[in-house]
Parts: sequence; structure tokens; C-alpha cells
Amino acid sequence: MKINSIGEFGLIERIKRCVTPGGSSVLIGIGDDAAVVEGRPGLYRLITTDAFVEGIHFKREFATPWQIGWKTMAANLSDIAAMGGTPRWAVVCLAFPETMSVEEAEELYRGMDAVCSEFGCSIVGGDTSLSPDRILISITVIGEVEKKKLTLRRSAKIGDAICVTGDLGGAQAGLDVLKEKGKTDQKVVERHLEPTPRVKEARTMGEVAQIHAMIDISDGLSSEVHHICRESRVGARLFAVQVPILPDAKQVASRQGRSPLDYALNGGEDLELLFTLSPVDVERLKAHLLSNTGTRVTIIGEIVESESGVVIVGEDGRERELASLGYQHFRD
Amino acid sequence: MKINSIGEFGLIERIKRCVTPGGSSVLIGIGDDAAVVEGRPGLYRLITTDAFVEGIHFKREFATPWQIGWKTMAANLSDIAAMGGTPRWAVVCLAFPETMSVEEAEELYRGMDAVCSEFGCSIVGGDTSLSPDRILISITVIGEVEKKKLTLRRSAKIGDAICVTGDLGGAQAGLDVLKEKGKTDQKVVERHLEPTPRVKEARTMGEVAQIHAMIDISDGLSSEVHHICRESRVGARLFAVQVPILPDAKQVASRQGRSPLDYALNGGEDLELLFTLSPVDVERLKAHLLSNTGTRVTIIGEIVESESGVVIVGEDGRERELASLGYQHFRD
Repeated sequence: MKINSIGEFGLIERIKRCVTPGGSSVLIGIGDDAAVVEGRPGLYRLITTDAFVEGIHFKREFATPWQIGWKTMAANLSDIAAMGGTPRWAVVCLAFPETMSVEEAEELYRGMDAVCSEFGCSIVGGDTSLSPDRILISITVIGEVEKKKLTLRRSAKIGDAICVTGDLGGAQAGLDVLKEKGKTDQKVVERHLEPTPRVKEARTMGEVAQIHAMIDISDGLSSEVHHICRESRVGARLFAVQVPILPDAKQVASRQGRSPLDYALNGGEDLELLFTLSPVDVERLKAHLLSNTGTRVTIIGEIVESESGVVIVGEDGRERELASLGYQHFRD
Repeated sequence: MKINSIGEFGLIERIKRCVTPGGSSVLIGIGDDAAVVEGRPGLYRLITTDAFVEGIHFKREFATPWQIGWKTMAANLSDIAAMGGTPRWAVVCLAFPETMSVEEAEELYRGMDAVCSEFGCSIVGGDTSLSPDRILISITVIGEVEKKKLTLRRSAKIGDAICVTGDLGGAQAGLDVLKEKGKTDQKVVERHLEPTPRVKEARTMGEVAQIHAMIDISDGLSSEVHHICRESRVGARLFAVQVPILPDAKQVASRQGRSPLDYALNGGEDLELLFTLSPVDVERLKAHLLSNTGTRVTIIGEIVESESGVVIVGEDGRERELASLGYQHFRD
């Protein structure tokens, strides 16, 4: 069977069936942002891993080695944030062609180390090897989370408010600017190349409210909403006018003749957090997060019954199904 | 600077300097078979990671997807064994071309799961993505070890006996047989494609003796002896006649006009354990290991003062320096 016929998410479902289920030490196996296994007293241990292939996930013509290091590590830290946790230790596999210099390899690690240091994580090991023709990076980050602060995809409740941190669309707009060449919309390019994982925000949220479900926006808002709904067996109603779009991304969209909402819904790589919680907790959480991290939280919709599906109310007031158009490997 | 001018091990030394040292939670960072960080009460947590690139680490013409899965996972479990630990949880990154079938991907995971299941480890997560032209696998395994059973490279003591488990040379002989085509020396091919990580042996050893230093033989015996000596600041004297060589590997060597000792010293990938301990403990350990696991232990030399260097006494009784000729990436 060709992989394109089932896509990345279909493949993951099949892989699950090839793997012996973990014993009592495994709370969450394949299928969330990170695995959750037993940890030190009162804590769960979180394990997340991601691979990045030159030409697929990044291009050397667009990013310095330092930026490639920063971004790949940031994506992993973001997965730990999505579980409500604190990243602690990272290991890195780097395979690259002989044409790459020692200095480039060093810059790559410095970029990884910079974002790790900012969020209290240490690079403790790894593996280096030869790759014939392109750079390959894989990173595993191990984190910890207090048992009652763990946030899964599967725990959204009907009636929850659906919220996001920050602004969306910047990362995709940044990629389009890089492709344009000669353009220098610095802010969106920075969002694309040096995204900030929302580790502090995730930790701060846990101080004042019970977050029901959470995921980071790595493939695109539309896919992530679908992930939460599928895992939680609920539906969702989003409101297009409420989706926070980075102003600079709107400018790029207008220049490119693209829809800013499309950037936000389907662009991916923003590394913002998408989460659900009881509506009565939202105002307290917004105020606490703004004063402690400077980050804004926006309500973009509500969790509804599964039968209602996953829909978005457009700017015209009409409701339509929300297609899951975020990035997915192996899709025709 | 070109990477070939410093080699893989030189690169690792430089990477260490680019990375902020871990805090008090990190006992061993970059440079052993696995990182060692704080764990559950009485335990250290071990983290090891390895990447495997098609065409460099494995070839699809020689191995089935199941075998590729088995071998790549076995190499990681072996790293946990080398620290004296128990593998617990694994995460897997798999990137591959669209031409690979769903069934091949499933077989790869089944091979990984088979060796994990045999040694009490669970695959709990991962990442799948597209790779333009070759399969890329990276695996991270997290293990645990009782604090006093931890075995590092750096703790060999002068006067220690140097020992290995099992027989050496089989994996390299197996690779040569596969390259010959048409030949079917099943035993060495199996050693190459389906090696057994010595997890049970490492755990059993810890029951009856204090192992001083340990490493697994993944790059070749000669390199591994040098790693232990450099990290422990000691020398070593090996005896060629005592190095245990798999009888089937001797046959292949003779057919190929190669030296069986060369297979054992420089072949790599045998996944046997190389370790040092007080000579008074050796006989007890050998008997205990044989009766509990069926695995033989052989003394191949002794730890000496650093000034004496790393030498091997040949079959002719003459002592010569032991060159570190095991596999190393980025070496001219």
C-alpha cells in the first residue's frame, strides 16, 4: 500500500498497532505531543522527539546554521510546553555531509544551546554521523510535569472556551517572504526562523487555571483543532473574526494575494499554544498571563458536541466545516 | 575547517564546548554511551540516542525492514546495557521516501518492537516524516540504573582485568558475506543483521561484582579500549591469543584472505560488552554469568599505567601499539 493513500496521520494509526502497548509505567504512548511515563515522586516524565530533514523541514539558503539549531530545538521544547511541562534534558542526532564545516556544525549546536538555556534545558548527549547529501537533525527532549498540571489532547470538555496564545500566521508569512527574495519583512521572517516556544506561558497558565486540553500549533491551527476534537471526542465552533493574526502577516498576505486567515489556519510552525478551559477561568488566566509573561490570550471559539462537527463561522456570519489543511507528510 | 581534519571524535570534543554545561541534575553529559541525569529515588536516568542513515549505516539490499528495525533498536539498547542499566522507554523518528510502502514501514516498527519486547522496553512515541531519497532512523532510549550499579567509561583502575562477553568478529564477517553475494554463512550474517544487545548480561554482572568501567563494542574493540583508557587516564595491555573470535568468522576471514583478529579488533557492531573489574572478581562473575545467561566471559588483557600506552601482545609474543582503527565517521 502506498503511504500517500493514508497520509502521515493514517500511518501513525497503523504504527500504533505494530507496537506492543507499554505496561503500567506508560500513561500516554504514541499519539500526543509527547509520551507520558512514570517519573520522580509527584511528577510525570515527558518524552518528545522530532526529525528535521534538509530540503523538507528547512533550507540552508533561508537560514543560518544557528537559526536551524534554534528552530529545531524550539519545536521540541514547544511539544513539552504543550503538555504543561518543563523541558529538562535534550539529546541531539546530527548527520551531515562532509562538505559542511566544523564551524557550521558548531553554530548549529550554539543555536540549539541558546534556546535550551533560555528555557532551563540542557543538551546532555547525542550522536554525530555522516550523511551523503543533506543535513539530518533529530532531537529528543525529556521534560517533567506535576501530575495535576499535565495537559493532554484528549481532555477537552463540551462548553470549554478554545484559546490561543499570541498571534498566528507569522511563520508561514515569513516563509513566503524568504521565497520572494529581496524582501525584508523582518518580523515575520523572525517568526519563521526563530520562533519562541511557549514554555513560560504553559507553566504560568498552570498556576491559575485547570487547562483541559492543550496542543502546540506546529502543523497549522486547523489540524490542531481537529486533533483535539478527535482525541477528546468533541466538536468545535471557531469564529474567524476572533482568530488573532499577526499584523505583519496580514501585510504580506495582501501583497501575495493570499488570505491572512489562511496563513493563520493552515500555515503552521507558529509554535503558539492552542488550549481549552472552562469559560469562567478565562479572564483570570488572561490577566495573569499578560502580567507575568507579556503574552496575550485570545478566545477563538468553543468546544461543542461531537455531532456538531468542527466548524468555523466566517466573517460573513456563515458557518462552514473547518477543513484540516495543516501540514501533513505523505499526502497527495 | 573541514570535518575530515578532526574526525568524529574531534568534532564531539568541539561540540562539548558549544554547549552550556548541565546543572547539578546532570551527572554525565556528552561523551559516554548514554547521558546520566537524576532519576527516581535511588536511580539514575540514562538517555542514549543514535541515528542511522540508509547507505551509511544499513543497506536495503542486505536487510529486510524487520531486520533494519531490530538492529537499529538493538544498538540503542546496547548503549543502555553498557551503563549497567535497564532500558525502559524508546521513541523513534523515521523519515523515508514516498516509494516505501506502508507494509515496509510496519515491518520496520515490528522489528524494533520485537527486540524492545525481549528486553522490557516500550516504544512510546516518535515522529514520521518525508525524506526525499533515503530512509533515516533515529532512536532515543531512556533507561534506569541503580546508583551503585552505574558503569562509566571513566572508572577503569590499574590492575583491572579487561574482559569481553561472547565472541567477536561475527558482525563484520557477516557484512563481508553479504557483500560476496550467493554465500550463506548464516551465523555471521545473523550476527550482522540481528545482533543481541547484552542487556541481561550487564544486569546479571551487577549482581555479583563491582564492574569498574564498561562500554559496548559498536565501533570496534580497538576503538573501545582506547575510549576507556582515555576517559579513565590509564593504559591497557591486550593479548591477541586471548581475544575470543567467533569460529564462523575465522572461516570467512580465511576465505577472504583477511585476518580474523582484524575482524575482532576493528570490525565493530558486535554489540558485545567490554568491561574492567578487579581480577579477584573475575572467576565468580564468569561462573554466575554462564549459569544465568549462557554467555561466556573472556579475559583479554589488563589495565596498566597510562605511561605504558595501549598495546597488544601479538601471537608472536611481541608487543606493539594498538591502533584505534574502529569505525569513525568523517575520517580521511
